[in-house]
Amino acid sequence: MLKKLDATIKLGKDLYKEQIESMILRLGEAQRKCKEAGIPIVVLFEGWSASGKGSRIKSVIHSLDPRGFEVFTIQRPNEDERLRPYMWRFWNKMPAKGRMHVFDRSWYRVLMRGHEKDEIPLADPIQDVLSFEKTLADSGVLIIKLFLHVSMKEQRRRLKRLADSPETAWRINEDDWIQNCRYNETMLAYGRMLEKTDHESAGWTVIEADNRRFADVKIYRSMLDAMEKALSAKSKNGETDRSSVELPEITIPSVLESVNLNRSLDRKHYNERLEAAQSELERLHNEMYIHRVSAAAVFEGWDAAGKGGAIKRLVYRLDPRGYKVAPYGAPNDIEKSHNYLWRFWNNVPKAGHLTVFDRSWYGRVMVERVEGFCSPDDWKRAYAEINDFEKQLVDSGIILLKFWLHIDQEEQLKRFEFRKNTPEKQWKITDEDWRNREKWDKYLEAVDEMLSRTSTEYAPWTVVEAVDKLYARIKVIETVRDSLENGMKSVRKK
Amino acid sequence: MLKKLDATIKLGKDLYKEQIESMILRLGEAQRKCKEAGIPIVVLFEGWSASGKGSRIKSVIHSLDPRGFEVFTIQRPNEDERLRPYMWRFWNKMPAKGRMHVFDRSWYRVLMRGHEKDEIPLADPIQDVLSFEKTLADSGVLIIKLFLHVSMKEQRRRLKRLADSPETAWRINEDDWIQNCRYNETMLAYGRMLEKTDHESAGWTVIEADNRRFADVKIYRSMLDAMEKALSAKSKNGETDRSSVELPEITIPSVLESVNLNRSLDRKHYNERLEAAQSELERLHNEMYIHRVSAAAVFEGWDAAGKGGAIKRLVYRLDPRGYKVAPYGAPNDIEKSHNYLWRFWNNVPKAGHLTVFDRSWYGRVMVERVEGFCSPDDWKRAYAEINDFEKQLVDSGIILLKFWLHIDQEEQLKRFEFRKNTPEKQWKITDEDWRNREKWDKYLEAVDEMLSRTSTEYAPWTVVEAVDKLYARIKVIETVRDSLENGMKSVRKK
Repeated sequence: MLKKLDATIKLGKDLYKEQIESMILRLGEAQRKCKEAGIPIVVLFEGWSASGKGSRIKSVIHSLDPRGFEVFTIQRPNEDERLRPYMWRFWNKMPAKGRMHVFDRSWYRVLMRGHEKDEIPLADPIQDVLSFEKTLADSGVLIIKLFLHVSMKEQRRRLKRLADSPETAWRINEDDWIQNCRYNETMLAYGRMLEKTDHESAGWTVIEADNRRFADVKIYRSMLDAMEKALSAKSKNGETDRSSVELPEITIPSVLESVNLNRSLDRKHYNERLEAAQSELERLHNEMYIHRVSAAAVFEGWDAAGKGGAIKRLVYRLDPRGYKVAPYGAPNDIEKSHNYLWRFWNNVPKAGHLTVFDRSWYGRVMVERVEGFCSPDDWKRAYAEINDFEKQLVDSGIILLKFWLHIDQEEQLKRFEFRKNTPEKQWKITDEDWRNREKWDKYLEAVDEMLSRTSTEYAPWTVVEAVDKLYARIKVIETVRDSLENGMKSVRKK
Repeated sequence: MLKKLDATIKLGKDLYKEQIESMILRLGEAQRKCKEAGIPIVVLFEGWSASGKGSRIKSVIHSLDPRGFEVFTIQRPNEDERLRPYMWRFWNKMPAKGRMHVFDRSWYRVLMRGHEKDEIPLADPIQDVLSFEKTLADSGVLIIKLFLHVSMKEQRRRLKRLADSPETAWRINEDDWIQNCRYNETMLAYGRMLEKTDHESAGWTVIEADNRRFADVKIYRSMLDAMEKALSAKSKNGETDRSSVELPEITIPSVLESVNLNRSLDRKHYNERLEAAQSELERLHNEMYIHRVSAAAVFEGWDAAGKGGAIKRLVYRLDPRGYKVAPYGAPNDIEKSHNYLWRFWNNVPKAGHLTVFDRSWYGRVMVERVEGFCSPDDWKRAYAEINDFEKQLVDSGIILLKFWLHIDQEEQLKRFEFRKNTPEKQWKITDEDWRNREKWDKYLEAVDEMLSRTSTEYAPWTVVEAVDKLYARIKVIETVRDSLENGMKSVRKK
C-alpha cells in the first residue's frame, strides 16, 4: 500500500496558497455544520516517526473553532490505564455528538509498536481495532484516519535536525533511529497493517508528507470530503428507519419457557450455604486483589425480581475498597450524546477489582428496543457489538458473569402489591413499573432473544429461578464463588 | 483533644446487638431519605494506622443500599494527580446530589503525613482544607468526619498481628511502626490537627476504636445524627430565601465607567505586533512544557465582544498537545447536581499545560445572579469561594489570567445587526443574545461588582477595551505573553 506512493511529491507555493485558502473557510464551515448536525468526529494522525504529525495537526486546527475540538496525544499508558483493558482509555476519549477529537497517535499504537510492558494485551489486536471502529461508525461517529508517509531520506534528515537542537532532542529516541535504519522492512509492515485495517466504516488516507504544503492540502481535502459526505448522508438518512441489519435465525427453543420456577430452598439450608459462600467469596476477593484478577457481575431481571437483595448479599463480606456497585438507570444527557456502550466502559473493573453492574448494556436490546428508544437496526446490531465488547473484557482477563433473575407475571404482581401496601417499601415501586408490566409479552420476547443471541462460550448467561428469593440468592452467590474459584485456580498455577 | 478520650472503652455483646439492630434499619432509611432530598454526603474515615478504618467501613455499609454509595481509598497520588493541584483529585470525587461517598483516608493525608514526593504542595494546608470543606458545606454537602482512635497497646497488638500473617503483612510498613513508637508525640500532633480543622460546617467525631462493638455503635450513631439533622434542616429551610451573607462595602468606584473604549490600533501595527507576540508565545509555551509550568486564561465579556476571535489568535501558533480550550455554556444535568466549581476543576491545567476557559466560574456572579438561577446567598458567598479557589490555583504554581472584554451597548447592537444580516455569521446570534441585551444594566452592575470583589493581588482582572477588535486582541495576547515571560523568569532562575 505504501510502496506505490511517492512520499516526495511536491506542491508549489502559489498553488498551495490558492488551494488552501478556499479550503480553510470551507473546513470551518463544515465543522460548524457537523456540530449542528450532532456528528461526532474522530481524526487520527498516524505515521512514521518525524513525519510531522504535530505540525500537521497544528496546521489543520488553524481553520477550526477552538471551542469545538480537542487534541489528544497518546503516549505510554499511565498506571490507571495499564490496570484496565487496552481499549478503555480510547473509549473514554470518544467525542460527544457534535465534537471533534483529534488524535496524535491512537489505538493503532499496538499495531505499530506492539504492547507496552505491564499493559493488559489485546488478544486479537487487528480484530479488536476493527470491531471498535465498526461499533463507533455504526453509531454515527465519523472516523477519519490519516497516515503520514515520509521517505527514508527525508525521515533521516528530520531526525538529524531534531537531534541536533537541544530544544527538540528529547523528542526522539533510539526506536526512531532504528525505524529509519530498517525503513524498508518497516514500510512493508506498515503497509500490511494499513491494508488489514482499511475497511468500509473507516478507511485510511495516506498522506505523502515529505512536502508540507502538499501534505496540508491533502489533509484538508480528505477531511473536507469526509465531513461533507457525512453531512449529506445524514441529511438524506434522517427519515428512513427501515431495518437493514439481518440476524441469523435462532435455532434453539425459548430459554425462558423451560425455566422451573418452583425451585426453592428452606431457611435453614439457606443460612448455612449463605454463610459458607460469603466467607469463601471474601477469601477469593482478597486473592483476586493480590493477583490482580478482576471480575464483572452483570445483573438483569424483571422489576422486583430481587436484584437488589441478591447484590447486597453478594458483596456483604467483601472489602469495599475492592468492589463497586454501579447502578444504571436511564442515561443522562452526556451519556445520551455518546455510543450506548460508552458509559459502561467507564466502570470496567480495574485489575484486582470487582464491578457489579446493576442493569447494564443489555438495556439496548430490552428497554431501548421495546420502548423504541433506538431503531431496529440499532438493537439488532447490538447483539454482535455486545458479544465483541464482552469478548474483549474476557480476553483481557476479566471474569465475566451475567445473571437473568426470572420470575413470572403472577409473582411480580404479588410483589408489586406488597410494596404498594407496605409503607417502608413504597419507595421501591413507581408508576413506570406498572407501565412496564403491561408490556410483559414484548419484554419476554426481547429477553428470550437476548439470552439466545448473547449466551456465548466466553460469557454465558445464568438464568436464576427467582420466585423463591432464598434459592435465587444462593444460586447467584454460589455461581460467582465457583467462577472466581475456577478463575483463581488457573492463576495460582502460574 | 485525643488525650482526654479513652480509646479502650468497651461495649458488651448484648447491648451491642440491641443498639445496632435498631440503627441498621434507621441508617438505611436515612440514606434513602437523603437520596430523595438530594443531599450529597461525604463520610471520611481517618485515624491511626491499624485503627480498623477498612473494617469499620465494611460494617457501616452493610446497612446501606449498595447502589447509593461508593467507597474511595486514598493512596499515594498517581501521575495524573501529581501533575495537578492537591485538591484536584478530591474535587473529582465529590458526590452528586443524593449520593454518598465514603473515604478511607482523605484530603487530611497532607495534614497527617505531609506531602508526597513530586506532589504539588498546598501553600497553607489547614486553610485550604477548611475553605474546601466550607465551600462544599455551604453548597449543601453533608460532611461527616470520623477519626478512629486506638490506644498504643492495642495498636501494637494489631500491627503485630497484621505483620505475622503473610496475607496481610504487605498492608503495613515502617511508618506504621514508627507511629507506634512515637505514639505520644503523634497523639499530640493529631490532637492539634483535629482542633484546627474542627469547624462549624464540618466537625470531627472521635471514635474510640479499641473495641469494635463500641466503635460500630458510635459510628452508626454519629452518621444517623448527622443525616437526620441534615434532613430536618433541609425540610425547614426549603422556602426561606432571604439573604444572610453580608459583604463588605465596595469602596472603589466603578471600574467599567472609566474604561476608554476609543482605544484602537491600525492594521499595519496590528499585524506586526500580532506576529511578534504569537511567535514569542510559541516559544514560551514550549518552555512552559519543559519546565512543567502551567497557565490558565479566563475569558469573560459581553456577547459579541470578541472572545472567540481573541482566543483563536492567542492559541494560533501553540502546539495543540499543550493547550486546551474549554468552552462553558449552561451546565448539563450532571454538572447541575454538583457544586458550581466542580466542572471547572475538571479542566484545571496539568503541569506544563495551558487551559483557556471560554466563560468560567464567574457565571455564578453574572448570569446565575441576574437570571436568578441561584439564591442571593449563593452568589454573595461565591466571591470569597472564587477568591479561595483562584488562590489555590496560583499557590500551586499556575499562572492565572482573567480578561473582561468590554464594549458598550451601541457597539453590541452594531455587531448583532451585522451578524443577523450576514448569512455565514447568523449561527453566531441567538434569541437568547437579544434577551440578555435587554438586561444590560443588571449585567453591568453585576460585572462591576465582580471586577471589584475578585480583583485580587494574586489574580487581578485585565479589562480589555474591545470596541476596536485589533486593539483588543493585541492587548490580550501581549498581556498573556508578558505574564508568561514573568512567570518563566522566576522559574529559569531556579
